[in-house]
Amino acid sequence: MKTYAEMSIEELKSELAELKKQYQAVQAQDIHLDMSRGKPSIEQLNLSMGLMDVLDSSSDLTCEDGTDCRNYGQLSGIVEARQLLGDMMENNPKDIIIYGNSSLNVMFDTISRAWTHGIMGSTPWCRLPEVKFLCPVPGYDRHFAITEYFGIKMIPVPMTPTGPDMDLVEKYVSEDDSIKGIWCVPKYSNPQGISYSDTTVRRFARLKPAANDFRIFWDNAYGIHHLYDDHQDYLIEILAECKRAGNPDLVYKFSSTSKITFPGSGIAAVATSPNNMEDFLSHLRRQTIGHDKVNQLRHVRFFGDIHGMVEHMRKHADIIRPKFEAVEEILEKELGELEIGSWTKPLGGYFILFDSLPGCAKDIVARAKKAGVIITPAGATWPYGKDPNDSNIRIAPTYPGLDDLKKAMTVFALCVKIASAKKLIAEKEAAQ
Amino acid sequence: MKTYAEMSIEELKSELAELKKQYQAVQAQDIHLDMSRGKPSIEQLNLSMGLMDVLDSSSDLTCEDGTDCRNYGQLSGIVEARQLLGDMMENNPKDIIIYGNSSLNVMFDTISRAWTHGIMGSTPWCRLPEVKFLCPVPGYDRHFAITEYFGIKMIPVPMTPTGPDMDLVEKYVSEDDSIKGIWCVPKYSNPQGISYSDTTVRRFARLKPAANDFRIFWDNAYGIHHLYDDHQDYLIEILAECKRAGNPDLVYKFSSTSKITFPGSGIAAVATSPNNMEDFLSHLRRQTIGHDKVNQLRHVRFFGDIHGMVEHMRKHADIIRPKFEAVEEILEKELGELEIGSWTKPLGGYFILFDSLPGCAKDIVARAKKAGVIITPAGATWPYGKDPNDSNIRIAPTYPGLDDLKKAMTVFALCVKIASAKKLIAEKEAAQ
Repeated sequence: MKTYAEMSIEELKSELAELKKQYQAVQAQDIHLDMSRGKPSIEQLNLSMGLMDVLDSSSDLTCEDGTDCRNYGQLSGIVEARQLLGDMMENNPKDIIIYGNSSLNVMFDTISRAWTHGIMGSTPWCRLPEVKFLCPVPGYDRHFAITEYFGIKMIPVPMTPTGPDMDLVEKYVSEDDSIKGIWCVPKYSNPQGISYSDTTVRRFARLKPAANDFRIFWDNAYGIHHLYDDHQDYLIEILAECKRAGNPDLVYKFSSTSKITFPGSGIAAVATSPNNMEDFLSHLRRQTIGHDKVNQLRHVRFFGDIHGMVEHMRKHADIIRPKFEAVEEILEKELGELEIGSWTKPLGGYFILFDSLPGCAKDIVARAKKAGVIITPAGATWPYGKDPNDSNIRIAPTYPGLDDLKKAMTVFALCVKIASAKKLIAEKEAAQ
Repeated sequence: MKTYAEMSIEELKSELAELKKQYQAVQAQDIHLDMSRGKPSIEQLNLSMGLMDVLDSSSDLTCEDGTDCRNYGQLSGIVEARQLLGDMMENNPKDIIIYGNSSLNVMFDTISRAWTHGIMGSTPWCRLPEVKFLCPVPGYDRHFAITEYFGIKMIPVPMTPTGPDMDLVEKYVSEDDSIKGIWCVPKYSNPQGISYSDTTVRRFARLKPAANDFRIFWDNAYGIHHLYDDHQDYLIEILAECKRAGNPDLVYKFSSTSKITFPGSGIAAVATSPNNMEDFLSHLRRQTIGHDKVNQLRHVRFFGDIHGMVEHMRKHADIIRPKFEAVEEILEKELGELEIGSWTKPLGGYFILFDSLPGCAKDIVARAKKAGVIITPAGATWPYGKDPNDSNIRIAPTYPGLDDLKKAMTVFALCVKIASAKKLIAEKEAAQ
């Protein structure tokens, strides 16, 4: 079988005509499928319905330390929730603050606070002529939306299969004191599903920032979100590594149960050094009296301990794994020999990154939409929504049912073929 | 019986000697009572244990409009929670945004957002040479803590029995465009327990601020927190009044269920004009994907409707009312004829304001503490913690049991007498 690049203009045109027939047939099916966001499926949500049973009106809502979860107080969270999320995040419970339902909100607040008050007494970022963030690309659109919102200049840093290009990160961070942070999804990254290598994490912990208020924003959203029991990524724990490297205050680590129990009704957490924690709490106490302790207790009672949580994640994996495998299978079957795209094969997380021929991503997403399949907008994985190659497409396999997903991916592959054929025809014609 | 002022120095000294004996006897009792914060008692918390029963693993967590409460989304809150809190706040559900567990946090965020991004496109407050807030005094310490945190200059405005001194408010607001807001607890105010009169509310709605980004921060924390069935304060609904006055965007109205169900595990809300709401949401969507919808649904299912909530508040009142009455009774009995202090007699809310002789409040609170009774620090009800008269003391009767409360108030009254006698002796001696 020829790749598309090997085909002549005539062969490509004939292929395109055939593809368009298929596309018309698909459009006639009146499909409506949304795979734009990394949302758990209903089947996954059902796994956590037990959360609704662990507390009832006869429950004692008192914590181990005597705190009545129903009343005010406990700014850092209840002891047992700090223990559970400490185990989940591989950190000491003392280094954990439990927040409300959204780690994204905590990240927003962290930057907002630096903007208005600085970090540990540094100049508030709003008083600086320019503030910059490094943004490994492609990355998470909601991260970039926060930095864009504050007018922080975002500098793309290419992702490699082992994490961000650390030569570039080290150079930027050490030379430019207006660079105040870097967005990282270090494990099963959004959108590639890759994990940072040991070397990458070690180099992060050993950064020598020109700015003393530079922080790594380490969003470990998928720390225990494996697809396989026997084949898992391993990530070096960054807080311990920073401490070993003599850089204890370098990192803010974020996590949540959003994709463990119910998105929006889970609990979020930060792990960080004692100095950073003191800084966090000194501001947080102006902001709120405390977060939802009953929901913290509910999560603790539901899981029991980290082992219970790991077992729970195994059930998620059983639901998600066939979906990831179906995506890979269809992409391989439909596109495997055509050389018009590549894709990642993650061992966990919520996403697969598809890389089209340059200049085709927007066209593919638009064509899929016209056929009733909603994909994350092309460009969304780049700062300001601008993918310079127009080639990255984030695939989110979790939400649709398996049959719908297969249908959607077949439509997607068809759109990839059409867009690629059109592009190659135009190129070949231009070269004549 | 003579008032303290009518007593001679000798009579006062003899009285003081007797009081000190009583104080020593109290100290020997090794009392430990905390009435420093406006917290519900355990008995009140028990009223809401049914919240833990309304959802279980067999429940359908789908909203009326088909939203799965367990998944992401619904930035403004679920329809039925907007309906319930709309009824509670006397506003159209369309004008309501449901937030997380803390209205204080929403107020913080609102000011933080104005600080970083302005209001409806106005200059961000961080770029202005000075930002000021009007602070009706005495007022709520956590309000003042927020404005202090942002370096906003706080201008005290005296409270009258009908609300803030509106002549002053109108003058300040119309003349000074650096005044951007005013903190209000309009019903059963913290700490007086008084409610703004109709005239006050109407004058608020008709303010003509020099700054177009001036907003009234209307913290209606105790809107349905009555002590009596037949004797209640009534507050004109401010949003409707602002609309009638041609000032629809003038007010942000805050409320929550913190003192209805569980503090820290309730739901908070903002009611405001469509323009303000659009402004709120345009920022909020960068901050979070949504708040805890399961908890919103839990509250809706628990109360059913506003009537259920009102019936629930009647049970709170039955627990709180005897405590307020006990405080008033003891103050009347111990201090009624001595003319060394006055106090409010609220019909709802969480606080009673005690006004001592000038210069005595700190002394009274310190003496109470030494006898084992913790009161809100004197001065806490003023910006920067500075009460120029040193006379305001906030009494929070709800948390202690009735017997403990009576004991604490007897100790308190004793401390008032000692501090007042000492002050009057010193004054009379100085006048000789």
